[in-house]
Amino acid sequence: MSQQIEPIQRMVSALARLPGIGQKTAQRLAYHIVSLPLEDVHDIANSIWQGRKAIRYCETCGNYASQEHCAVCANPTRHNGQICVVRDPRDVAAMERMHDYHGLYHVLHGTLSPMDGVGPDDIHIRELLARLGQENVTEVILATNPDIEGEATATYIARLLKPMGVRCTRIAHGVPVGSDLEYADEVTLSKALEGRREM
Amino acid sequence: MSQQIEPIQRMVSALARLPGIGQKTAQRLAYHIVSLPLEDVHDIANSIWQGRKAIRYCETCGNYASQEHCAVCANPTRHNGQICVVRDPRDVAAMERMHDYHGLYHVLHGTLSPMDGVGPDDIHIRELLARLGQENVTEVILATNPDIEGEATATYIARLLKPMGVRCTRIAHGVPVGSDLEYADEVTLSKALEGRREM
Repeated sequence: MSQQIEPIQRMVSALARLPGIGQKTAQRLAYHIVSLPLEDVHDIANSIWQGRKAIRYCETCGNYASQEHCAVCANPTRHNGQICVVRDPRDVAAMERMHDYHGLYHVLHGTLSPMDGVGPDDIHIRELLARLGQENVTEVILATNPDIEGEATATYIARLLKPMGVRCTRIAHGVPVGSDLEYADEVTLSKALEGRREM
Repeated sequence: MSQQIEPIQRMVSALARLPGIGQKTAQRLAYHIVSLPLEDVHDIANSIWQGRKAIRYCETCGNYASQEHCAVCANPTRHNGQICVVRDPRDVAAMERMHDYHGLYHVLHGTLSPMDGVGPDDIHIRELLARLGQENVTEVILATNPDIEGEATATYIARLLKPMGVRCTRIAHGVPVGSDLEYADEVTLSKALEGRREM
């Protein structure tokens, strides 16, 4: 006899596919979910599914959006002379948590990685260049992760932008090298922004 | 400006209500979910909701079931002379993981707790007594948690069953006192079953 009935087993398998959730945690979560009132479970499942369905990409910067433009691009009080270039939408959320940056973003949706076959055409570099032509941009802040791919991507973009006369800066290595931007605390991120240097 | 758009914020709130999932973990999970293909997210949300909807209680023992009877009660090879009394369906899953027990179960859905106003009529003790009248039971194994409420519940049931001439045993304190049955490893649970004593 299997240890779990099929509906619970399916729930465990689905939850165990999420990052950082192992078999034991998934089991604990599944048994908790099964013990909740129907409305609560509907609310959880619904917010996951409807939330995912509602997500689209901002037509300007590539950040997550629920309308044509993301909350940052749609905000007229943001300083449109600065563009902060990040890898993922979650990095936008990390930057926004520090409340110190008032410019716009550009989400690359990846970093250059020749080992994995990711070249300049596979990430949103072309879209960044197009924005520089249209918008009144005076500075591009390169805030890709401080790891090998992130550094390589920043260097690549800086070399492209230099001839265009755009000021190109890199966030300081206040963020611990080899870590993930998403997990940096607000103070570290703030220091990193402050100590940005010419490239 | 809020740090997250509404669909993501809703997902984070829903996930953060689950046990052991804090705000940061919920955010990480939400951003991961949002980056998954639509089908995968549908699968996750669906297995949570359909799984919860499919769950009912076994009419005999109170365990989780997807039909009228749970997988244990419906299995004709299980020894029907033994009933193991546990607090929750998740404790049935813990017992089943050790593969050493071949009898039936009875799920109380709670333990006696005068402090919280939980008396004998609030948990499934009456249903247990009814089963003893109908079925050919020679032993009731009391496997409630080894904490104050669990001990009190076991003692209470043992006192009720003694006059009925049913052998009543308690799992040994091989399981660490004050812990939760759900987290005991298979070997510890096996030792606890082996060393059960008369009450």
